[in-house]
Amino acid sequence: MLTLDKIYHASYVLKGHIRYTDLIHSSDICPGTDLYLKTENLQVTGAFKIRGAFYKISQLSEDEKSRGVIACSAGNHAQGVALASTRNGIKSLICLPDGAPISKVEATKKYGAQVKLVDGTYDDAYEEALRLYEKEGYTFIHPFDDEDVIAGQGTIGLEILEQLPDVECVIVPIGGGGLISGVAMAVKKLNPNVKVYGVQASGAPSMQQAIAKGERITLDTVSTIADGIAVKTPGELTYELCSKYVDEVVTVTDDEISSAILTLIEQQKLITEGAGAVAVAAAMFNKVPIEGKKTVCLLSGGNIDVNILSRVIKRGLLKSGRTYALNIELIDKPGQLKGVSSIIAETGANVIAIHHERADANSDINGCYLRVVMETRNYEHIEQVRSALKNAGYKIS
Amino acid sequence: MLTLDKIYHASYVLKGHIRYTDLIHSSDICPGTDLYLKTENLQVTGAFKIRGAFYKISQLSEDEKSRGVIACSAGNHAQGVALASTRNGIKSLICLPDGAPISKVEATKKYGAQVKLVDGTYDDAYEEALRLYEKEGYTFIHPFDDEDVIAGQGTIGLEILEQLPDVECVIVPIGGGGLISGVAMAVKKLNPNVKVYGVQASGAPSMQQAIAKGERITLDTVSTIADGIAVKTPGELTYELCSKYVDEVVTVTDDEISSAILTLIEQQKLITEGAGAVAVAAAMFNKVPIEGKKTVCLLSGGNIDVNILSRVIKRGLLKSGRTYALNIELIDKPGQLKGVSSIIAETGANVIAIHHERADANSDINGCYLRVVMETRNYEHIEQVRSALKNAGYKIS
Repeated sequence: MLTLDKIYHASYVLKGHIRYTDLIHSSDICPGTDLYLKTENLQVTGAFKIRGAFYKISQLSEDEKSRGVIACSAGNHAQGVALASTRNGIKSLICLPDGAPISKVEATKKYGAQVKLVDGTYDDAYEEALRLYEKEGYTFIHPFDDEDVIAGQGTIGLEILEQLPDVECVIVPIGGGGLISGVAMAVKKLNPNVKVYGVQASGAPSMQQAIAKGERITLDTVSTIADGIAVKTPGELTYELCSKYVDEVVTVTDDEISSAILTLIEQQKLITEGAGAVAVAAAMFNKVPIEGKKTVCLLSGGNIDVNILSRVIKRGLLKSGRTYALNIELIDKPGQLKGVSSIIAETGANVIAIHHERADANSDINGCYLRVVMETRNYEHIEQVRSALKNAGYKIS
Repeated sequence: MLTLDKIYHASYVLKGHIRYTDLIHSSDICPGTDLYLKTENLQVTGAFKIRGAFYKISQLSEDEKSRGVIACSAGNHAQGVALASTRNGIKSLICLPDGAPISKVEATKKYGAQVKLVDGTYDDAYEEALRLYEKEGYTFIHPFDDEDVIAGQGTIGLEILEQLPDVECVIVPIGGGGLISGVAMAVKKLNPNVKVYGVQASGAPSMQQAIAKGERITLDTVSTIADGIAVKTPGELTYELCSKYVDEVVTVTDDEISSAILTLIEQQKLITEGAGAVAVAAAMFNKVPIEGKKTVCLLSGGNIDVNILSRVIKRGLLKSGRTYALNIELIDKPGQLKGVSSIIAETGANVIAIHHERADANSDINGCYLRVVMETRNYEHIEQVRSALKNAGYKIS
């Protein structure tokens, strides 16, 4: 049975081994709300997972420690287990599907784990981990459905109450539910008046559906940019704790998550991964009743692939009118490109790509298309560019 | 005369108005060095400038306060002055060249300043600010060459010694020199054994050249990605203080700065602007003798334009082998694109753009070119893709 004592004990054990992450005040994100960010994206390994893994491993018997631990994860749990094992002087083996991003594999190795790449999917890697656990006597470290792991994550709840004693609402991401179970229990046991809201991706609402239905369910598929919380089945223990301590579970879309990631970059200079940004997305898009309340959003992690980050930024720029792509129909004669370029330059837009293409089936035989991608300031600026081109007689499609 | 007293006084005045920014331990950046990051990029307004501006403004006489302040800046100083004025209940006017990025203008307005857009360049805006200062009686807030401003920035030095009493080296960006003057004075007065290194962009080495020459100089031109430290002439006061207290000034290139920005994003989940990343660039590229030393890199700010950020990331991905663009010569007959696509898919690379073009003057009349941009894992992976295509008989250029 998980108790507050255990969470306090975890807090004591973790001292000096993990970062006591900053709580940053940042009301700009959500005008009208007194908003704070608990920056677990700045935690060692880039995510909160090290807390649960470290505490779990520290509590193993000497015999268990000597045999080492095993885990299956392509993400933050793998890195948490790897580093926690290394710091506790024991060996760890992480099973990964062989298609896992090389950056995750490298990060896991860097923290001292042995990595086993398994042919096939995540499920195959999981099977292999279970097989090795049984055959070789490793201790299996579950990513969320484990009392010690949950107690470790719960230490964040203690820190929040220490950093902001009069907090009124806490918003926490939910994947399997380990993080919110620990945080909600710590917070509610100390102050039952604090509201705890959970956030899932709308493409992976397993805990939300389970609580609505009154029993654990398994989703057929999950699909979200927030891969860290794409979990099909809630844990047994976490389902119970969430049912008991969480006030409401809401969902956010991938577009809302992307927007939150970009806002955190621009306003707060913080990188979050998809899962790490869902609490802020819920606050920004009014999914939870926090107006006028002292509210903490938990940023759970920052391990976003840079290619994905690049795409999120590009999409954000397009959506906010700071990148603009334009198709212009031209008569195919010399000097046309120069004309268009001059007009665009005069408006102050900055051309970053041009494609010039001869007639297709839909256009005049003498026509051609010019596709121009440019950096613009905002939608107003885009309108200026369009008007200037139209006024000069160009056909914009 | 600037004294340590004044810096302590500034520290007292700033309390509760600015963030006491976290000092984050992160030795991964620079193996072999015990490295810490002073995260002024997470400061209110996204940069340290608020410290100097706030202290300066707090020390104005009632009469001066009633007349308001004026500044000329398209960057962090503008936002610092704007917010500091608003918090002190006085009005501020910021002169900007009319080509300034709309995002900077909006940010400055958001913090409560009146903004005056001046036709022409930065120098024209500066002239206009001086004219208004004389005509209307505003107090002019210099971005760096001012004792109170320097004292405000110096509070960072006090915090560093408080957070890491046994620090051995501090690395600080230099533009006009206000930040390092304050920090170096605070640090050296308390512990003369601490080394203080300054970092400039190699495209704007004004303080470095001035110190080498033994007198203030003015650069003809400056050119760097780190616009926040692109300063042609060091201040009088800052030149004196740097000559006295700074151990060495080094420079870093734009490529080194970009690499530091990307490293801070990937490893530390922190956004820095060009100027904000130069201290880390100096540490990463061995510009300063810090091996084995307890070292603090000052991250001065995080206000990077997202379009520029996007470019830095793209360039970083290319340079680390995680994006790859390939030109393939094809015979112009059906099924070629499919063949290439299948081979690339088998290697696990992810195609993000394709251009298909008919023969040009250099190729066979029946030939065509395919340009494929894909996400790859690293250089090894790129080689796999190339070999697979070559083995299938495709000509890669």
